[in-house]
Amino acid sequence: MKATILHAPGDVRYETVPDPRIEKPTDAIIQLSATCICGSDLWPYRGLNGESGPQHMGHEYCGVVVEVGAAVRTVKPGQFVVGSFCLSDNTCPHCAYGFQSSCEQVEFMTGAQAPYARVPLADGTLVATAEMPDAEMIPHMLAASDVLGTGWYAAVAAQVRKGGTAVVVGDGAVGLMGVLAAKELGAERIIAMSRHASRQALARAFGATDIVAERGAEGIARVKELTGGVGAESVLECVGMAASMEQAMGVCRPGGTIGYVGVPHGVSLDGQKLFFAQHRMLGGPAPVCRFLPDLMDRVLKGSIQPGKVFDLTLPLAQVAEGYKAMDERRAIKTLLRVD
Amino acid sequence: MKATILHAPGDVRYETVPDPRIEKPTDAIIQLSATCICGSDLWPYRGLNGESGPQHMGHEYCGVVVEVGAAVRTVKPGQFVVGSFCLSDNTCPHCAYGFQSSCEQVEFMTGAQAPYARVPLADGTLVATAEMPDAEMIPHMLAASDVLGTGWYAAVAAQVRKGGTAVVVGDGAVGLMGVLAAKELGAERIIAMSRHASRQALARAFGATDIVAERGAEGIARVKELTGGVGAESVLECVGMAASMEQAMGVCRPGGTIGYVGVPHGVSLDGQKLFFAQHRMLGGPAPVCRFLPDLMDRVLKGSIQPGKVFDLTLPLAQVAEGYKAMDERRAIKTLLRVD
Repeated sequence: MKATILHAPGDVRYETVPDPRIEKPTDAIIQLSATCICGSDLWPYRGLNGESGPQHMGHEYCGVVVEVGAAVRTVKPGQFVVGSFCLSDNTCPHCAYGFQSSCEQVEFMTGAQAPYARVPLADGTLVATAEMPDAEMIPHMLAASDVLGTGWYAAVAAQVRKGGTAVVVGDGAVGLMGVLAAKELGAERIIAMSRHASRQALARAFGATDIVAERGAEGIARVKELTGGVGAESVLECVGMAASMEQAMGVCRPGGTIGYVGVPHGVSLDGQKLFFAQHRMLGGPAPVCRFLPDLMDRVLKGSIQPGKVFDLTLPLAQVAEGYKAMDERRAIKTLLRVD
Repeated sequence: MKATILHAPGDVRYETVPDPRIEKPTDAIIQLSATCICGSDLWPYRGLNGESGPQHMGHEYCGVVVEVGAAVRTVKPGQFVVGSFCLSDNTCPHCAYGFQSSCEQVEFMTGAQAPYARVPLADGTLVATAEMPDAEMIPHMLAASDVLGTGWYAAVAAQVRKGGTAVVVGDGAVGLMGVLAAKELGAERIIAMSRHASRQALARAFGATDIVAERGAEGIARVKELTGGVGAESVLECVGMAASMEQAMGVCRPGGTIGYVGVPHGVSLDGQKLFFAQHRMLGGPAPVCRFLPDLMDRVLKGSIQPGKVFDLTLPLAQVAEGYKAMDERRAIKTLLRVD
């Protein structure tokens, strides 16, 4: 089959690779219904992760099981499944504690920007639906695999509560899903920090009550103004840069909580500053597995439409253009059709 | 009157100063029943805070109100009171949120190593008892002002829960109070990290179920061994050094919480490391005011005896020896008698 390989920064190719096959008895092979490009794929695409050599790309996926290893018990060929970008056994103490992204056997999904993919730890990772979903459900189900699950975790980690105030730092796809999550979790006030008209509009559609276009000290002052001088109790940091973390800390009230889900790049926290700011912090790769059944249920009931975050759809063969569009910020998030 | 002045590192003198007086209508003057020396007093004593010039010392206090400013409503002369080392109005949004140590008007108490002291923001800071407590209650009540309140906050910030597992890093007075707090909050397993026999004994008396004498990688391995390879869900960091924070992170399970109450000195947290460790963090100067009525009640009922943490008692006039004994680790914590 053909699949997506990153050869070097900026050099994405859709080219022939060996078909995926069952390598361990806990594996499953799925036929992708759709796949997509993640903001985190742009790190290696931009040469910022220091990797070298060709790598298989893609960790967001949903599709139909075509084959399972001998040890797989919970899914079977023919079922539609969604899985987390973090692969976990879902039985170890860390999984049982709800932190599947720190599973004793944790692996990160790869090779999903392809028509078929191998999913290790299938029993702990894949969640099947009772029926085959309609085609229009696919983008929403696909989102649950990472971008929605990650935005959701940002809101949960930030302790968003019914009637509370949340600020979302970052207007990328994860930030927009953070807005949706804060809305679903009952936040009354959702302040999205965004400078781009199209993203502001999506943020409003997902539930933002206020938009702050300013950044830095001005952005902090504006949020303070909107919160009676106090700051927000919940802050979702959805970028992972030093400036965005600084922004998150600036808008968080003492005793408030920052949930951070952007993989930190160049972020260092000064212990004494954090101490006197009195911010509760929780971050990490999202334990999507914890939320997946609930998120899929919300999608199937039609109560959320996270797939609206995809503003560019391309056939998988044009994956390189998908990366380019996101790199140049022409697209928020690219869905790749598997025809 | 005479009071304690730090003139330069290592140079503590008990010398004549002007009597404290009401300076603002929200002030109260108290006659100290006893006072003490805090581990944090050792920072300037050792010249590690970069201050210069003479400074009044002492921020832990309990005693009898002798005079109040015109605006004071909740306490009156003749009442026995305990107050937090953090002075707060207890009415601003941060106070109402339970973070009185970030009060809009926050000040830090000073000048309490003396027979009389001025307490600003008396209404928001002082808690009076219904009756004059017996003399043997004084050390326990005094402890509530900071060392107990701070250890208590470490346990609350670390989300110690009934039946849970807590590790206490630091066997100083705050760490020992952290053990007591974890016990009161219902932790089933309390692992105290301590290398000193006398402190180990006190930790056991306060409720520690296990002692780990090892440090660094060995200490982490030992805690892992005691927790089935998992680590602890609650970790109380009661020191504030880079090594102790490292230790706390090493023994905390993914998804676990670190409550840190030692003012960080030279502590820097790597964003990416913290992210993948998935540790929840909350620290800060303890909002003792939030806990004070409850702590005083527990003391008066005799259910806790935090004053046992004082292992050296001196008359106030010998305060310099009190500092020396703590600096040389001959004493855990010095109580100063006001005769």
